[in-house]
Amino acid sequence: MRILVANVNTTQSMTDAIAAQARRAALPGTEIVGITPRFGADSCEGNFESYLAAIAVMDAVTKYDGEFDAVVQAGYGEHGREGLQELLDVPVVDITEAAAATAMYLGHKYSVVTTLDRTVPLIEDRLKLAGLDARCASVRASGMAVLELEADPQRAVEAIVAEAEWAVREDKAEVIVLGCGGMAELEERIRERCGVPVVDGVAAAVAAAESLVRLGLTTSKVRTFAKPRPKKVVGWPAPSLPEAAVQEAPIVEPAA
Amino acid sequence: MRILVANVNTTQSMTDAIAAQARRAALPGTEIVGITPRFGADSCEGNFESYLAAIAVMDAVTKYDGEFDAVVQAGYGEHGREGLQELLDVPVVDITEAAAATAMYLGHKYSVVTTLDRTVPLIEDRLKLAGLDARCASVRASGMAVLELEADPQRAVEAIVAEAEWAVREDKAEVIVLGCGGMAELEERIRERCGVPVVDGVAAAVAAAESLVRLGLTTSKVRTFAKPRPKKVVGWPAPSLPEAAVQEAPIVEPAA
Amino acid sequence: MRILVANVNTTQSMTDAIAAQARRAALPGTEIVGITPRFGADSCEGNFESYLAAIAVMDAVTKYDGEFDAVVQAGYGEHGREGLQELLDVPVVDITEAAAATAMYLGHKYSVVTTLDRTVPLIEDRLKLAGLDARCASVRASGMAVLELEADPQRAVEAIVAEAEWAVREDKAEVIVLGCGGMAELEERIRERCGVPVVDGVAAAVAAAESLVRLGLTTSKVRTFAKPRPKKVVGWPAPSLPEAAVQEAPIVEPAA
Amino acid sequence: MRILVANVNTTQSMTDAIAAQARRAALPGTEIVGITPRFGADSCEGNFESYLAAIAVMDAVTKYDGEFDAVVQAGYGEHGREGLQELLDVPVVDITEAAAATAMYLGHKYSVVTTLDRTVPLIEDRLKLAGLDARCASVRASGMAVLELEADPQRAVEAIVAEAEWAVREDKAEVIVLGCGGMAELEERIRERCGVPVVDGVAAAVAAAESLVRLGLTTSKVRTFAKPRPKKVVGWPAPSLPEAAVQEAPIVEPAA
Amino acid sequence: MRILVANVNTTQSMTDAIAAQARRAALPGTEIVGITPRFGADSCEGNFESYLAAIAVMDAVTKYDGEFDAVVQAGYGEHGREGLQELLDVPVVDITEAAAATAMYLGHKYSVVTTLDRTVPLIEDRLKLAGLDARCASVRASGMAVLELEADPQRAVEAIVAEAEWAVREDKAEVIVLGCGGMAELEERIRERCGVPVVDGVAAAVAAAESLVRLGLTTSKVRTFAKPRPKKVVGWPAPSLPEAAVQEAPIVEPAA
Amino acid sequence: MRILVANVNTTQSMTDAIAAQARRAALPGTEIVGITPRFGADSCEGNFESYLAAIAVMDAVTKYDGEFDAVVQAGYGEHGREGLQELLDVPVVDITEAAAATAMYLGHKYSVVTTLDRTVPLIEDRLKLAGLDARCASVRASGMAVLELEADPQRAVEAIVAEAEWAVREDKAEVIVLGCGGMAELEERIRERCGVPVVDGVAAAVAAAESLVRLGLTTSKVRTFAKPRPKKVVGWPAPSLPEAAVQEAPIVEPAA
Repeated sequence: MRILVANVNTTQSMTDAIAAQARRAALPGTEIVGITPRFGADSCEGNFESYLAAIAVMDAVTKYDGEFDAVVQAGYGEHGREGLQELLDVPVVDITEAAAATAMYLGHKYSVVTTLDRTVPLIEDRLKLAGLDARCASVRASGMAVLELEADPQRAVEAIVAEAEWAVREDKAEVIVLGCGGMAELEERIRERCGVPVVDGVAAAVAAAESLVRLGLTTSKVRTFAKPRPKKVVGWPAPSLPEAAVQEAPIVEPAA
Repeated sequence: MRILVANVNTTQSMTDAIAAQARRAALPGTEIVGITPRFGADSCEGNFESYLAAIAVMDAVTKYDGEFDAVVQAGYGEHGREGLQELLDVPVVDITEAAAATAMYLGHKYSVVTTLDRTVPLIEDRLKLAGLDARCASVRASGMAVLELEADPQRAVEAIVAEAEWAVREDKAEVIVLGCGGMAELEERIRERCGVPVVDGVAAAVAAAESLVRLGLTTSKVRTFAKPRPKKVVGWPAPSLPEAAVQEAPIVEPAA
Repeated sequence: MRILVANVNTTQSMTDAIAAQARRAALPGTEIVGITPRFGADSCEGNFESYLAAIAVMDAVTKYDGEFDAVVQAGYGEHGREGLQELLDVPVVDITEAAAATAMYLGHKYSVVTTLDRTVPLIEDRLKLAGLDARCASVRASGMAVLELEADPQRAVEAIVAEAEWAVREDKAEVIVLGCGGMAELEERIRERCGVPVVDGVAAAVAAAESLVRLGLTTSKVRTFAKPRPKKVVGWPAPSLPEAAVQEAPIVEPAA
Repeated sequence: MRILVANVNTTQSMTDAIAAQARRAALPGTEIVGITPRFGADSCEGNFESYLAAIAVMDAVTKYDGEFDAVVQAGYGEHGREGLQELLDVPVVDITEAAAATAMYLGHKYSVVTTLDRTVPLIEDRLKLAGLDARCASVRASGMAVLELEADPQRAVEAIVAEAEWAVREDKAEVIVLGCGGMAELEERIRERCGVPVVDGVAAAVAAAESLVRLGLTTSKVRTFAKPRPKKVVGWPAPSLPEAAVQEAPIVEPAA
Repeated sequence: MRILVANVNTTQSMTDAIAAQARRAALPGTEIVGITPRFGADSCEGNFESYLAAIAVMDAVTKYDGEFDAVVQAGYGEHGREGLQELLDVPVVDITEAAAATAMYLGHKYSVVTTLDRTVPLIEDRLKLAGLDARCASVRASGMAVLELEADPQRAVEAIVAEAEWAVREDKAEVIVLGCGGMAELEERIRERCGVPVVDGVAAAVAAAESLVRLGLTTSKVRTFAKPRPKKVVGWPAPSLPEAAVQEAPIVEPAA
Repeated sequence: MRILVANVNTTQSMTDAIAAQARRAALPGTEIVGITPRFGADSCEGNFESYLAAIAVMDAVTKYDGEFDAVVQAGYGEHGREGLQELLDVPVVDITEAAAATAMYLGHKYSVVTTLDRTVPLIEDRLKLAGLDARCASVRASGMAVLELEADPQRAVEAIVAEAEWAVREDKAEVIVLGCGGMAELEERIRERCGVPVVDGVAAAVAAAESLVRLGLTTSKVRTFAKPRPKKVVGWPAPSLPEAAVQEAPIVEPAA
């Protein structure tokens, strides 16, 4: 089977890392295709960027040239999963939700450790909407931005492990969910220091997607996720962007 | 003061109707500017269209050439309000939320009557996220599509009033919120037939926005709605679309 | 339009302060009438006093000699709003609820900072009943009694600002609601020190009441807030009190 | 031990009926003293009347000339229990809450059957505040007013039993709570027709009060129900009413 | 009346202590019969032991040779109450629930102080299932195992009182529920140090059971707690155990 | 990998059916071992039987002679999963929870269709404890007992499909969860008649268990599911039963 694993930002190296992680989790016969949106931010850390990613992921997935059996949306706490579910027949699995559902098999309460404080409410909101928040002990931020994780992995690991320890000790989490891009080292370190299982969202989502496909289950089309009704839509499919706009995308303050 | 009232679809006549409704509710000194997105669907009745609208509204509002004091997002149950709140300093009021908050001043429970059954979960989700669902007796659908409201107003009125009656009698609603575009006739008819106050979201949102402006209150910038961090964003500001693409936008089945 | 702003205690200077605050928030054409109950406690800091205030406010409002368009009940966390809603046709707005509903437009979570610890559960209960508690991060007490606010404003300001800071830092509040009588200085100081919007309940309630009146919305009369049924009521309208009883009201321990 | 059982309305025959019911439930050594408020409505069916009753019961109980060990507030869905708890050291038990807590020992879900539809939200609110609503299947109204129960008992019984049957069949109640004044016949009839236990609030509250007294438990005084602080209170203790005002209390429409 | 008070573990001295406590709380005419399970663990501190206790208590109660009017299940946070309710017609009262329901008459919020941290989630789960968790401020563990309470009472008292103080100061509990076996000294000490009422579960449950019996109330048999349907059951009634197995039960690590 | 799939009742033919269903869902390399408890009821339809099953499953699983990688507890709405989690290191997946978690990937709301009305509260309670109830539209009973499903499959199918249709039409379920033993025919028929995905708990649980094993995730041992502490346990391991007791187990009314 083929699973599209869609990064929510435009950073190719993160797509590669996510896809590699997905492959480690996948069944032998599963082909993992990493998808990088054509537009959007180089990292998603808020609602503006996340809404842009929602559209960019729908764009990238519907433009994918080939068949596929499921989609994993690989952004933590991001918007958009419901839109993909309308557009597609195959299952769509969000890593925020897959990680939570998986953690709930393993302990009484789980905590999420993520990057910046400002993304905490996004994650809380997605878990609440998904109805997976009742056993969430806390969502904690390490204070490290997404791209800093790559730039200074040692400090990142330390900051994240420290929050995981607090979650276990103070919030009574029994499982830690990694609410941020994959660092193989992280899982090992948290397990060692906290003695609890660590759930990586990408791995959890790939396994969930494979399960759905194998069980022949697809998104329900009777109501919420029915195909969009035929209507006049301007700007969709999304237009090409001039190559220059892509290559030279400046660092902008979007609303300046 | 000047308030931008943003339609979420590309149908100019609906922008006009919404703006007219906003003007009826506005204070004498308030200038209402109707905003129509440059792209998106001609009506929003699902997540795909709503996510597209989220971006299209952010695009239209940030491209507005002039000063303004507040924004009203005039779509019922739509995504996007959080993104606008990040991009702007001025208050942003969603009509779904303003209608609910207003209805709660008037009765013990309120019900929303909307268009198609498929939009009910979107509205329920937005009310849950907003923490305004505890006194919502029900969200009911009349079964009329957004554009049918314009095409066959008489039948639309009858269908909506019938649901309002059920909401009052069965669900014990004491206030009805109109979860759909404005028909002046509707409010009057429901009031007559059900004997309950009827809240129109656009009017409620304009009044709420004016109040926030007058009280000098603006969106909090300390965490969830802080300005997006400077970063590389491809495709933003959103590119121009060729005129042809706009004029001749075909009726498409988006994921066909 | 004319709005009655009802103080819940018998301290005239507080009525004056509340009315002044209301006037600062009101529209040019709005006449604010401060109402002081004929009986009750000189400050409300618990259920006994609050229940007494509920009746005293109903007494004062129904005895008001003149027309009016709305009532604001200006006590934080007090009983009684539902009774007024039954007796009157015009809108009734409670400042506890108006402040919460207003704060929810401005940030993801809000906190209330109030006076004594013993009033915290009253406020929590009113927010829960109103269905406005889902986004309340905390209700915090400064430890200053209502009348101490007047007596030692400097210390009061310091104590309240300190709690506001804790609310923002620890409870993740993004908006502060002032759950106590108006001190102009307070709003400014909290904004400066915490960098978040500050909502004053009286101002929020006046603006909400004005909005309801302008939109032609009144309390629903179909069920919960229907007029009381005609029946034999002893002691209502409430009897006159001998002048002496009013002038010389001793400081009593009510249940001693 | 002596328990004051406070009626919430001024109808002496109802006090007598309540006291008789209390005596049937009481332990041999328990003295039941029926208390009729000096003022208020002859039946409580809404917030105005209920708030008046809150004060009238506090007045009557604090003026009771003698010692007592506990107070039962015998009104279904009424305000005021928290005030009594502040004023007194002895336990205060509300029949709405005692009935719910008792029903929860007997079945998975319970329903309340009460009088008029307009009192349903009051009962729902009191159960929510008390944190006893999670296992409440429904609150149903028979449509009979409080005083009609006395006037046409046969019809009342039939209407109430019919609602109880619906509650068991449709709402899946396993226990019925009688949310209205005592008719011995009712319990027997519902038990026969529905095959479920029937809880009478007065009996449940008397038993709960006796238990608290026997176990030496009294209201906590550390925070919410601490004694009111000494302060200037006008009109308390409540003044005497001229005899004529009591005898000739007209049937009034309170806010006419 | 006769009440069976069932210990959930096999330690006879604890049955004796529980029965003594029950007798102190019981009415003069009530006969308390302490029941010790024939099998199970010598203390219950987790799910395995608690599930075993559920069956062992059902075994012991159904094998009791004589009539009885009610059963108290005297384990804090244990499984099994629902099974007893199916098997019996008489009321069954769980001490976890009786303590919570009793505490809720006395203060706005209560906290439970129990033994080991690992039992906290069991208690939380039972309170949630019982719908008695809304006013639970916290469940705190002293870190003392059940049998250590007997071995080193002085240290146990100190540890428990310390947690009770934290619950009152930090969690805003107004009542303390003792979630562990009875030590007369404890109640007194907590009351002294924290100034709040202390509820012992066994006493509360005995009083509740007596009340149900006196009011003629029994478990509803219409649905959840209907008698088990006749069917083939292997191993029930539970078989005798060889005396040796009982006398020499080794200290085992059950899943080693 | 090897997965033990534990039936909760003693009916071998049901174990066989469950194991066959598990094998259809399993990965090629997965060995499914059906486990039948040595004792307990021939079908589980209530708490008594379910508590007995909890112990019987723990007994059967811990006595299994061989290695295994995960356990699936294959009873709908049954007690016991937490006990297994304490005793074992490998993952334990309950079919009630796996089915719910799986359904939540596929639609906005799901409904469970089960056998007898009396088992509905057990399922509701398990979903509530698991924190998977927020998106459960309803739990509906077909009125067919477990063993009737085998005896009259045609009628069973019709009854279950009818409830599924109601769930989709009235309760707005978008996915149906089969809360009862497997009939291959059922899934197909419901899909045809209702047009929604149908989730079978056994298949969902096997897939979830395989995923956990592949991801190297095991039950957290830091708190709730830590190994039981070494202590004296009478009657465990559970004793052998005389062959006669097993073969000739009469149809008993357990508490007659």
